[in-house]
Amino acid sequence: MRPIYVIGTGMTRFGRLDQSITQLAQEAAIGALSDAESLGIKPDRLVVGSQNPDEFTGQGHLSTLFADQLGLVPAGATRVETGPSAGASAFETGVAMVGSGLADMVLVIGVEKMSSVDRGTASKILSKMMSYSNETLYGGTPAALAAIVARRYMHDYGLTREELALVPVKAHRNGAKNPLAHFQKEVTVEKVLSSPIVADPLTLYDCCPTSDGAAAVVLASKEIMRELVPEDQAIQVLGIGHATDYLAVQHRLHVTSLNATVEAANLAFSMAGITPADVDVWELHDAFSILELIDMEDIGLAQRGHAIDLLRSGDTEVDGSYPVNTTGGLKARGHPTGATGIAQIHDLVRQLRGEAPPGLQVSEPEIGVCHNIGGFGNNMVVSVLGIR
Amino acid sequence: MRPIYVIGTGMTRFGRLDQSITQLAQEAAIGALSDAESLGIKPDRLVVGSQNPDEFTGQGHLSTLFADQLGLVPAGATRVETGPSAGASAFETGVAMVGSGLADMVLVIGVEKMSSVDRGTASKILSKMMSYSNETLYGGTPAALAAIVARRYMHDYGLTREELALVPVKAHRNGAKNPLAHFQKEVTVEKVLSSPIVADPLTLYDCCPTSDGAAAVVLASKEIMRELVPEDQAIQVLGIGHATDYLAVQHRLHVTSLNATVEAANLAFSMAGITPADVDVWELHDAFSILELIDMEDIGLAQRGHAIDLLRSGDTEVDGSYPVNTTGGLKARGHPTGATGIAQIHDLVRQLRGEAPPGLQVSEPEIGVCHNIGGFGNNMVVSVLGIR
Repeated sequence: MRPIYVIGTGMTRFGRLDQSITQLAQEAAIGALSDAESLGIKPDRLVVGSQNPDEFTGQGHLSTLFADQLGLVPAGATRVETGPSAGASAFETGVAMVGSGLADMVLVIGVEKMSSVDRGTASKILSKMMSYSNETLYGGTPAALAAIVARRYMHDYGLTREELALVPVKAHRNGAKNPLAHFQKEVTVEKVLSSPIVADPLTLYDCCPTSDGAAAVVLASKEIMRELVPEDQAIQVLGIGHATDYLAVQHRLHVTSLNATVEAANLAFSMAGITPADVDVWELHDAFSILELIDMEDIGLAQRGHAIDLLRSGDTEVDGSYPVNTTGGLKARGHPTGATGIAQIHDLVRQLRGEAPPGLQVSEPEIGVCHNIGGFGNNMVVSVLGIR
Repeated sequence: MRPIYVIGTGMTRFGRLDQSITQLAQEAAIGALSDAESLGIKPDRLVVGSQNPDEFTGQGHLSTLFADQLGLVPAGATRVETGPSAGASAFETGVAMVGSGLADMVLVIGVEKMSSVDRGTASKILSKMMSYSNETLYGGTPAALAAIVARRYMHDYGLTREELALVPVKAHRNGAKNPLAHFQKEVTVEKVLSSPIVADPLTLYDCCPTSDGAAAVVLASKEIMRELVPEDQAIQVLGIGHATDYLAVQHRLHVTSLNATVEAANLAFSMAGITPADVDVWELHDAFSILELIDMEDIGLAQRGHAIDLLRSGDTEVDGSYPVNTTGGLKARGHPTGATGIAQIHDLVRQLRGEAPPGLQVSEPEIGVCHNIGGFGNNMVVSVLGIR
């Protein structure tokens, strides 16, 4: 595949916001296009990642709508959906478009507006990504599945409830310094433990919020990249992998490992020609606290059952050896589902360019990896970005 | 881009069917995989085109669901949506995946199950692809917009109501011989004219039905193609183009031309290195009778205002010089929106392989073109398939 670069990124604040889905997408897109300094050149392609705009907002047909409102007509426009990994899947589709030569410059927008419906409706919409006959029918929810996974992990590896709380504590510590995060305040282990139980053993602070927000990136061929931005602003897409697992958790070989992460990571690392040891900064999908630990193990950053050691030692902090979710992760940055995969790219690119928010910059990173989950652990995309 | 081949196709009957969306997708997919004789090799990628399964059926997350049910896990799986051109957009995404090298063999499924909701609900769901503030708010529907276009076209070019009826008459004549078509009976001009008015001047027989159905194709690199099928069964993807237009009809430069078709066709023909004169068989998006005439003009098959001449002379019949919609088009084959773009590919491939249903085979075609519309005329994909 020919070399592909991220030459611009943009992002709205995440949270419960007043703006419409269109306004959010526009703000992120204009941010990314301005960042790419593409005043003279328009993208010849738009890809939109969004999980379920029709049911969350009543607004459909985002592909043409955004192409029209952003002045991109007649560029081809496509919406991509794989549940909460819709953003990363849209990024992958954009990569394929440039990689195949069907496009030279692609604007990829990830967006979700979830707060227009009440929590019960949101939960129903989100539960559609689970197996109805195996899970939803019996009262299963994403949080309930995460609780089952957490309980089993605690049983198998001796993880304590207090240790698990270190994940949201770190997320909130980083989010407190990220001006775009949904939650910008620190929490303590005690606060996590004393907050309401969502699905035992998980409390409110183990679960990411439902958020509104958008993020956007501009992908370009080498020719376009050279025309628009200084080479040190261009971050190369070194590898990308996409894999699925069985829809229902009960059909999988393991409960405490998400095999689609393993498969997607293998594809992405192999394409990039690197190993996990080469990675300087990580964005992992921590929709529930337990997932950050499992992601670390599945992606090759930690040994089975030992991810918590890296949290306890401070290794996954911004100034540690293996910084994970430096801008707050899904827990504190927020999780507007279709936007998350692009927000991860945005935050990694800013890290690699040395432009992270004050207090969150990792020391001279050269390679970053992000990992986005769709469904409950069954549709993963892993991307490797770097300076080369 | 490296050469890409369609090595297998499958399709369900279209109509108001008892099967679920999952059963429809499976039947089409298994048909395509069997046709590709891929007993020993699994696709390494799945792309699903579907407009709005969540609201039409209550079933979400089709990407992982189908990967699971078809035994494709851990292959990456993505759903693509661009309104009623979701099928063609999924095909394009599959082409980009193989073209970029991210995949070597892609199963592309187009599916829609529209009959689970009543007609009023279906109409509401479909109207989401229009501009709410410019069209839907004032009572606009796709049929109403098509009626405005038809009225203007009749005014500008002197087309008569009787002449326009030749489009559905031809569609039904061909559909009557297609065992997979939604409608398999002929109609007369008198029948078209005397059927209930949907939006003046369009009657019931000027409008495609809402249908259930699925179609699937297998895309492959040259290496995979050579391993699986005889070379004369492999149909090459010679060109593909995708373009948008302004969302609202009133914002467009012309009412009687759909510029996204012009743009997408230019891209596709240029990539294929052919002109419209080289095309032996056409699949054009005739969701409303007037669109077939406009499509013919926009895509370069007929002069402005003269498409009807080719219908009157019989040139667009199966045995004519420019066969259009030989298997019934959207009008008679039916229009399960996300499935249509893949059904067009299926029918073209069967034509190019000399395997069209009895009475519908064009004489030794070598190049076929299909054209799928998303939104009301604002998100088009044109594909060129051929034997080379």
